[in-house]
Amino acid sequence: MTKKNDKITVAICGGSGYTGIELLRILSGHPHVVITVVTSEKSAGKSVSSVFPHLGKYHNLTYEPMDKTTLLKKADLFFLALPHGASQEAVNFFFTKGKRVIDLSADYRLSDRMVYEEWYGLPHKYPAALKKAVFGLPEIYRSRIRKAKLVANPGCYPTSAILGLLPAIKVRLIDVSSLIIDSKSGTTGAGRKADLAVSFCEVNEGFKAYGLGTHRHTPEIEQEISSVSGKSIKVNFTPHLLPVDRGILTTIYARLSKKTDTAAVLKIYKKMYKDEPFVSVLDEGALPNIKNVRGTNFCHIGLKVVPRTNSLIIVSAIDNLVKGASGQAVHNMNIMMGFEETAGLESLALFP
Amino acid sequence: MTKKNDKITVAICGGSGYTGIELLRILSGHPHVVITVVTSEKSAGKSVSSVFPHLGKYHNLTYEPMDKTTLLKKADLFFLALPHGASQEAVNFFFTKGKRVIDLSADYRLSDRMVYEEWYGLPHKYPAALKKAVFGLPEIYRSRIRKAKLVANPGCYPTSAILGLLPAIKVRLIDVSSLIIDSKSGTTGAGRKADLAVSFCEVNEGFKAYGLGTHRHTPEIEQEISSVSGKSIKVNFTPHLLPVDRGILTTIYARLSKKTDTAAVLKIYKKMYKDEPFVSVLDEGALPNIKNVRGTNFCHIGLKVVPRTNSLIIVSAIDNLVKGASGQAVHNMNIMMGFEETAGLESLALFP
Amino acid sequence: MTKKNDKITVAICGGSGYTGIELLRILSGHPHVVITVVTSEKSAGKSVSSVFPHLGKYHNLTYEPMDKTTLLKKADLFFLALPHGASQEAVNFFFTKGKRVIDLSADYRLSDRMVYEEWYGLPHKYPAALKKAVFGLPEIYRSRIRKAKLVANPGCYPTSAILGLLPAIKVRLIDVSSLIIDSKSGTTGAGRKADLAVSFCEVNEGFKAYGLGTHRHTPEIEQEISSVSGKSIKVNFTPHLLPVDRGILTTIYARLSKKTDTAAVLKIYKKMYKDEPFVSVLDEGALPNIKNVRGTNFCHIGLKVVPRTNSLIIVSAIDNLVKGASGQAVHNMNIMMGFEETAGLESLALFP
Amino acid sequence: MTKKNDKITVAICGGSGYTGIELLRILSGHPHVVITVVTSEKSAGKSVSSVFPHLGKYHNLTYEPMDKTTLLKKADLFFLALPHGASQEAVNFFFTKGKRVIDLSADYRLSDRMVYEEWYGLPHKYPAALKKAVFGLPEIYRSRIRKAKLVANPGCYPTSAILGLLPAIKVRLIDVSSLIIDSKSGTTGAGRKADLAVSFCEVNEGFKAYGLGTHRHTPEIEQEISSVSGKSIKVNFTPHLLPVDRGILTTIYARLSKKTDTAAVLKIYKKMYKDEPFVSVLDEGALPNIKNVRGTNFCHIGLKVVPRTNSLIIVSAIDNLVKGASGQAVHNMNIMMGFEETAGLESLALFP
Repeated sequence: MTKKNDKITVAICGGSGYTGIELLRILSGHPHVVITVVTSEKSAGKSVSSVFPHLGKYHNLTYEPMDKTTLLKKADLFFLALPHGASQEAVNFFFTKGKRVIDLSADYRLSDRMVYEEWYGLPHKYPAALKKAVFGLPEIYRSRIRKAKLVANPGCYPTSAILGLLPAIKVRLIDVSSLIIDSKSGTTGAGRKADLAVSFCEVNEGFKAYGLGTHRHTPEIEQEISSVSGKSIKVNFTPHLLPVDRGILTTIYARLSKKTDTAAVLKIYKKMYKDEPFVSVLDEGALPNIKNVRGTNFCHIGLKVVPRTNSLIIVSAIDNLVKGASGQAVHNMNIMMGFEETAGLESLALFP
Repeated sequence: MTKKNDKITVAICGGSGYTGIELLRILSGHPHVVITVVTSEKSAGKSVSSVFPHLGKYHNLTYEPMDKTTLLKKADLFFLALPHGASQEAVNFFFTKGKRVIDLSADYRLSDRMVYEEWYGLPHKYPAALKKAVFGLPEIYRSRIRKAKLVANPGCYPTSAILGLLPAIKVRLIDVSSLIIDSKSGTTGAGRKADLAVSFCEVNEGFKAYGLGTHRHTPEIEQEISSVSGKSIKVNFTPHLLPVDRGILTTIYARLSKKTDTAAVLKIYKKMYKDEPFVSVLDEGALPNIKNVRGTNFCHIGLKVVPRTNSLIIVSAIDNLVKGASGQAVHNMNIMMGFEETAGLESLALFP
Repeated sequence: MTKKNDKITVAICGGSGYTGIELLRILSGHPHVVITVVTSEKSAGKSVSSVFPHLGKYHNLTYEPMDKTTLLKKADLFFLALPHGASQEAVNFFFTKGKRVIDLSADYRLSDRMVYEEWYGLPHKYPAALKKAVFGLPEIYRSRIRKAKLVANPGCYPTSAILGLLPAIKVRLIDVSSLIIDSKSGTTGAGRKADLAVSFCEVNEGFKAYGLGTHRHTPEIEQEISSVSGKSIKVNFTPHLLPVDRGILTTIYARLSKKTDTAAVLKIYKKMYKDEPFVSVLDEGALPNIKNVRGTNFCHIGLKVVPRTNSLIIVSAIDNLVKGASGQAVHNMNIMMGFEETAGLESLALFP
Repeated sequence: MTKKNDKITVAICGGSGYTGIELLRILSGHPHVVITVVTSEKSAGKSVSSVFPHLGKYHNLTYEPMDKTTLLKKADLFFLALPHGASQEAVNFFFTKGKRVIDLSADYRLSDRMVYEEWYGLPHKYPAALKKAVFGLPEIYRSRIRKAKLVANPGCYPTSAILGLLPAIKVRLIDVSSLIIDSKSGTTGAGRKADLAVSFCEVNEGFKAYGLGTHRHTPEIEQEISSVSGKSIKVNFTPHLLPVDRGILTTIYARLSKKTDTAAVLKIYKKMYKDEPFVSVLDEGALPNIKNVRGTNFCHIGLKVVPRTNSLIIVSAIDNLVKGASGQAVHNMNIMMGFEETAGLESLALFP
C-alpha cells in the first residue's frame, strides 16, 4: 500500500486537544500524508481553522464526532489522541478491523495489564490487542515498530527519562537501585481544558512539584529500564510544573558502578545515539535547555560525572508535545510506513 | 541563473543576531537555497551549531568575519542583517558589484535621504544605490520587487501598521489626518545583546511604552501611507515592550470619512488581500492574537467599525522576526528569484 | 464610632476571588481593621489559609455563605467583591440597614441608571441607593467620600484612564472630541475562574485586543471625564490582555487645543497631584512601567507633547488589583473612617 | 544602645543590586530602622528613587561611593550586599571597628577557610574575623546570632536545602550518604547585570540545569548538615534556572533509615518548627509553590514518604531574595538587636 512516494490517508481522533492540534501542525508539512478525518465532540461541525486561527490551512477540514464505524473507511492509519480509558476500546476497534493505529494515550503502554490496572484504576478489556502493541520508542524498538500494526506512543516524561538513562543502563555503568528522576514540564502537559489549576494567574511566576511517588508515568519508566537492564527497577520519579508552554527537562541522578569520567561516558552516549536522527548528545560542558528543542522532535542530552559523590548526573530535554507526543507519533508512522524517518519533522526549533 | 528548480547560493551577513538566526531557521527548509556564508565578528571561527544548539543542522557552517571582498564570490544573494549605519556601505558594495541584496536594516528604506538623515542622525553616503532600492513590502511592491536588485526589507512595526491601514487608505475610507498607531512588540525586537534594560527580571511581568513621538519607524510608516493616499500624512506612533519573545500587535484608530459598518469594511479588506499568501483578514467578531502567528510569515487583521465614535479600529498581528523581518526577507527573495512565493515559509504557527 | 486609634470590624463579601483575597492581603497590615467576616459559597466552612496557602495568617478565619441577615450584625463596614448584578441587592440591603458599604462591582458606578441598563443589560432595582452612591475616586471626590455611606469603587481601566486625563481636561488643554484610550491589562483582570480563555497556555506568550467599542468600562470613563469637562464626551476605549498577572498600562492620545510643551504640561500635572498620596507624575523623559507599581496603590503617570502631530500622549500605570480595585477600596475606607489615608497601603512595589 | 523602641541607623553597602534594593523595600516598613547610607559606585550622586522608580519613598536618600572611613560614623549596623571576594575586606573593616555587620556575600559562611579557598579560588585574608562569624540561619543558630557582631547571611539555595533537611537529619530518619538536592531558582538569583545569558529572550520559555557538581553553595549545605548530623556528608546538589523573577523550589531525595510514614514524619517536622515564625510545614497532601511565598520571608515545606522506594521526598519553597537573602538578613538584625523577630517582615505574599 505505501511506497515511498505514495500518500496515505490519516485520521486524528481527538483533534482539538494540544496533542491533536500538534499532529495537525506537524502533518501539515508531511509529504506522504493526507488528513481525511479529525474528530472533536465539542467542535463537531466546525472547520478546524475557525476553532484554531493558527491552523488557517485547514479551512476545508471539519471536525466530526467520533463515530468509529463511519470513520473506519475514511483512513488508512489512525492517530488516537483520546483520554486514558477512552482510548482502550477505540484502539481495539480500529486495530481489529485491520487498520494501523498509533495510540497517544497510556492505554497500551504497560504490557502487564495488572500494572495498568493498579496505576490507572481501570480494568484493561483488550488483552489480545495489548499483547500486539509495540512501545513506540524508536531508539529501542525501531525494528518492531517497522512491523507493528499497533503502536503505543510513549508518555512525555518516560521519553525524556528513558532516553537519558538508556546507554548508562545498557553498558551497566550505574547502580540501578539508586535512580532519582526529577522532571519539570511545561503546562501543555496538563492538556487543554478549563481548569482553575492551570489558569494563567495560578501558573505564571509559580513552580511546584506534584504527584510525589504516585505519578502514572512511573511504571512506564520502570517497565522500559527494567527491560533494558534485566533487573526489576523501582525509581523515584517526581514531576514539576513549569510556567512555560512546552518542554520537559529531566535531571537524573545515579550512583556509578565503576570509576569513569565525563568524557568516557559521553563517548558511550554519542556512540549509542550516533545514528539516531532525533537524539543529540551535547559536548562536554554543554547542558540542554528546553528552549533549544521547542517545536522539534529532538532530545538533547548532557551529562556529568561527579567524582566527589561517585555519581552520574544526566540531563535530557524534549518538547513534550513533539518528541513527548505528536512528533514521536509521526516518527513512528514514518517507520511503520517505510517513509523517510524525518519526514514532516525537519523544522528547527523556534528560538527564541 | 535562477530557474525554479535551481539552487542559489546565499550569504547572511550578521548571522548571530535574532534576525540572522531566524534567516538560518527559515532557510533550513528552503528547497532552492544553499547557505554558503554566515558572518559574525564575535563568533568568527566557530560553527553555527556550537553557538546555537537549536541550529544543530548547521554543524558544518562556520561563522566568518565580514570581509566583503572575500565574501563577494561566495554567494549570489546577500541578506544583510547588520545594524543601521553599518549596513549602508556593505549594501552599496555588494549592490554595485552586481549582487542581489536584501537589506534588513533601515538604511535603504527611506527614499528621501533628508528624512533618513533627520531621523537617524547620519548622512546617507550612497544616494545612487538608495534610488535603486525597492521597499520590500510585497503587498504593495510585488511587481517592482520582481525586478529589483536591491530590496530594503521593511521594519517590523511599519509592516504591521501599513498592512493594517492599506485597504482603508486606498479606498479613502478614513480621515488620514487623525491616525493613531499603538503598537506592542515582543522583546526580540530589541535585538540580541547584553543590556540590563532587556534582562529577564526587568522585562518579565513588566510593560511600558517607549520612544513617544520619536521612534524611527514613524517616517517609514508615514512614507508608505502617504504614498498610497497621495497626501502627506503624519501619525502618532507609540511602541510598547511586551514580556514575550515574539510578536507585534498594532491597534490603529481612524475617524471614518464615510458612514459604513464592520461587514462592509471587512469585505473591502478581504477583497484586497484575497490573493495574498500571507495576509489573513479575520471574520467579523474575531480579533488577532500574536500567539496565532508565532513563527510564521502571516499577518492577521481584524477590525471593527464603532458608530458611536464614528471610528474604524484595526488590529493587526505579525511575528516581528518573521513577517516583520526574516520571513518577509525570504518572501522578497522568492519574488526576486521567481521561486514559489511561499517556499520555506509554509510551516504553521507554534501554538501554544 | 471611629476615632483614629479605634478598630472597626469589616466584612468581605466575595472573599475568594482575586479582589477578595487582595483585600485580605492588604488589610492584614491595617492598624484599624479587624476582619470578622469573609464569604464564599464554594469554600464555605473552610479556613482561608487552607484555600490560600499564602494567607497563612488567616488560619482562624473561616469562609461562610453569604447570608446577609446573619452577616449584618457582624461588621461595621462591608466590602462587596461580588459579580455585577449580584451586587445590586446586597449593597442595597447593607446600605439601607445603616452599614457603610464599599462596592467593588460596577453596579453603583453609573449614576444614570439608563446608561447602566444599556451597557449591562440589567435593570437597576435600587435607584434610591444609587442616588446616594459616591464614585470612589479620591482624587476627584475626596470630600464627598468623607461623608459617604455607600462608595462605588471605580473600575480598573477607568481609574487608569481618568487619572491620566484629569489635569489635561480640567485646564482645557486638549480637544476632548478626539480622545483615544488604549489600555493593556494583566490577566487577573479577568477574575479567578476555570476558563479555557484564561488558561496558561492560551494566554502566555500571547497578546490580543478584545471588546472593541463595547467594553463596559467605556461609559464609566465617559461619565467622569464628561463631568469634569462639562461636555458630553465619547471616547474610543480598547482593552488588551497582557500575559502578566497584574498591572494596567493605559496610553492616551489627545489633540492639543493650545500650543504647549512637555515641561509645561508636566508642571500642570505635578501641581494638580502634588498632595495626592498615590499619584506620581514622573519627570520629563521617564515613562511608567506596570512593574514599578506592582502590589501598590500607586498610579504612575508620564507624558509627552508631540509638536509634529500637535498631540499630547499620556501614559498611566496602576496595579489593577490594588489602585484598580482593592487598594483603592481600602483608601476609600480610610477616608470614610477618618483614618490616615495611607494606612495599610504603605508597602513598596515588589520589584522585580 | 538598642532598646525595643529605639531606632538604629543602618547602612546598605551595595544598594543597587537585587538584594540591595530588596533590603530597601523591606526596611521601608521597619519600625526601628533609619537608613542613613546606601552605596553604589555606578549610581553615586543619584537619588535612590531616580534610579528605581518603585522606591519613590527614598527620594531623599542618595547613593554614595563605598568610602569605608566616611561611612563608618554614619551607621550602627552595616548590611553588606557586595560580590564575594569584595566583601572580605569591607566586613573585616566594619567588624574590627566595632560595628555590627550582616554580610550577604559568601565570604564568611564557610568556617573552614581551606574549603572557602578551594571553592572560591581566593585566599581568605581575615581568619580572625571569620572565626567570629555566625552562620545566620536563625532556625539553627538563634542563640548565637543574638550575641553576634558578625553574621554571615546564608546563601539562597542552602537556606532552602538546610531547612528542608534539618528535622530529618536531627532525628536520624534518613541515610545521609544518599542525599540528592535538586533546586530550581528564579532569575533574580543571577543578580542585576547586563548579561546576554540572563536577557529576557534567552531565559523566557526556557529551563536548564547549570553548575552540575560544581556550584559554590554545595560546601555551604554540606557544612551545615554535616554539623547537624555529626558525620561528614557529601551531597549531589544541582541548581536550575527558572523563567520567573523570584523563588527557589528545592526537591530533596533521601533513603529512609527506618520504616515510617508521611504523617509521622510531618509530625516531627511540625513539632520542630512550631515556634519558628517563618517556617510553615504544610499538611499531608499539600505541596509548596514558590508563588505562595513570593515577597515574603516564609519557607514552606511539604513532604512525602514513598514506601515502594523506601524514600523520603521533601520539597521546600522560599523567595530567594527574601528568606534566601534580604529578608533573612533583616530577621538576623532583629535577633541581634532584640527587636520583634517579625518586624518589617509581616507582609503577606503577593499572590497572584
